Amino acid sequence: MSLTEVVDFLEREFPQIHHGGRSYHLEAVGPLRARMRMDHHERHLRPGGTVSGPAMMALADLALYAAILANIGPVGLAVTTNLNFNFLRKPGTGSLVGEARLIKLGRRLAVGEVLISSAGLDTDAEDLVCHATGTYSIPPTR
Amino acid sequence: MSLTEVVDFLEREFPQIHHGGRSYHLEAVGPLRARMRMDHHERHLRPGGTVSGPAMMALADLALYAAILANIGPVGLAVTTNLNFNFLRKPGTGSLVGEARLIKLGRRLAVGEVLISSAGLDTDAEDLVCHATGTYSIPPTR
Amino acid sequence: MSLTEVVDFLEREFPQIHHGGRSYHLEAVGPLRARMRMDHHERHLRPGGTVSGPAMMALADLALYAAILANIGPVGLAVTTNLNFNFLRKPGTGSLVGEARLIKLGRRLAVGEVLISSAGLDTDAEDLVCHATGTYSIPPTR
Amino acid sequence: MSLTEVVDFLEREFPQIHHGGRSYHLEAVGPLRARMRMDHHERHLRPGGTVSGPAMMALADLALYAAILANIGPVGLAVTTNLNFNFLRKPGTGSLVGEARLIKLGRRLAVGEVLISSAGLDTDAEDLVCHATGTYSIPPTR
Repeated sequence: MSLTEVVDFLEREFPQIHHGGRSYHLEAVGPLRARMRMDHHERHLRPGGTVSGPAMMALADLALYAAILANIGPVGLAVTTNLNFNFLRKPGTGSLVGEARLIKLGRRLAVGEVLISSAGLDTDAEDLVCHATGTYSIPPTR
Repeated sequence: MSLTEVVDFLEREFPQIHHGGRSYHLEAVGPLRARMRMDHHERHLRPGGTVSGPAMMALADLALYAAILANIGPVGLAVTTNLNFNFLRKPGTGSLVGEARLIKLGRRLAVGEVLISSAGLDTDAEDLVCHATGTYSIPPTR
Repeated sequence: MSLTEVVDFLEREFPQIHHGGRSYHLEAVGPLRARMRMDHHERHLRPGGTVSGPAMMALADLALYAAILANIGPVGLAVTTNLNFNFLRKPGTGSLVGEARLIKLGRRLAVGEVLISSAGLDTDAEDLVCHATGTYSIPPTR
Repeated sequence: MSLTEVVDFLEREFPQIHHGGRSYHLEAVGPLRARMRMDHHERHLRPGGTVSGPAMMALADLALYAAILANIGPVGLAVTTNLNFNFLRKPGTGSLVGEARLIKLGRRLAVGEVLISSAGLDTDAEDLVCHATGTYSIPPTR
């Protein structure tokens, strides 16, 4: 699926992510990869202006889901079965970017990792705010 | 801390969880334990009316945080360092309940697990919709 | 499968666990459950006489595998896809026991948790040395 | 610490890894990194000649530990607090290599990831047999 097709699919399947205003934006998709940006929005922030853990977790899950869609097509029923998060540093107050990479894309399971960092920074080790891995069960009838 | 004290603390530290309307309710705290309910709310739902993964992840994180607060006092800066989720079954359309239990409460680290099931059901294996474990770093100066 | 049948199956499929001498013993199986004991053995110990992390990880994986076998029969090709470990306390120098409980047993995936504690102690929160969760992919042709 | 110093330290602290014959070899250390090789050895193998899960878990834990030692010195009491493994493909019958990279190296916690693949292959997504993340608690008095 192209970038536009994945964006349209996510709009239909995950409309709740835009509840209260748009802040998740799919920036790019490619072979085994996707990049998702989460803009600053009041509903994601903790006191002090830093992004909350659950907002980062949603970003990681969405970025991985987008990478799967881009690489195997509109699998509406692909299901998240496991997510693991290591929270590394307090994020800044600006946008965050999640770089997702699939490390397995089998017939039944897809596994990927996501590196989350502040927008505009590299995903070097010293800039990461969160590292996530996720597993998705792919429906048998595709 | 008592139930009321924990509720008040969470209101101050995590106001964003009520953005768009209240749906998280701390029901009980006790030795190494806390129970948090998440009511049905449009912003947590996926098409079809089932609760989204990120909404469950927020519930688990909050329930564990409440259990730590209840057992060691107002540690405003306790930081989530790791969260692991296994999503087991599609939740129903009603409220969800997260039962948190701390399995380690040390000076520097707290570790706990959360069993999430539909409100009104047991936390038997066959009713769980999500199992989570979490690790929290406790600030040294408490 | 009965306790004896699971033990025989593990002997054939995982003979390497006994390399250097027997120390893993399946003590019980039941509905969604299994209990595995790991006896003190030089090859599992770190300096100071405490059990190494990898020895505990092997115990958890085996206990979950035994619980799956006991509940769905000889699935020789069931494959571990995810394991998550929280190491809670330094174990003592005696035997360890892993209590495995399946929290999902579907057609394609099984998920379970294992509580590891010193033999003879309860699996109360304050006695746990390790908590693990695991996911197993079940072959489609059973 | 240099490569030689880390090797010597591991020999003293983890002699049990060589129980039954040497198969773990630290190949390189560098800024935030370490590479550990695990050679083919009967005690690591399952029927069919593939490397067992616990043998890979030991490799990941050791590689991360080596990366920490190389970067902060002989912290004999650094303790593994969390390990998460995604098993991606059945490994071949030859040696395995674990490439460890620290993604956080704080005063109290270190977090890293390990990519395990067959020796001689790249760590491209399609060659990985296991992905692991680990968290280590660093003693306060160093």
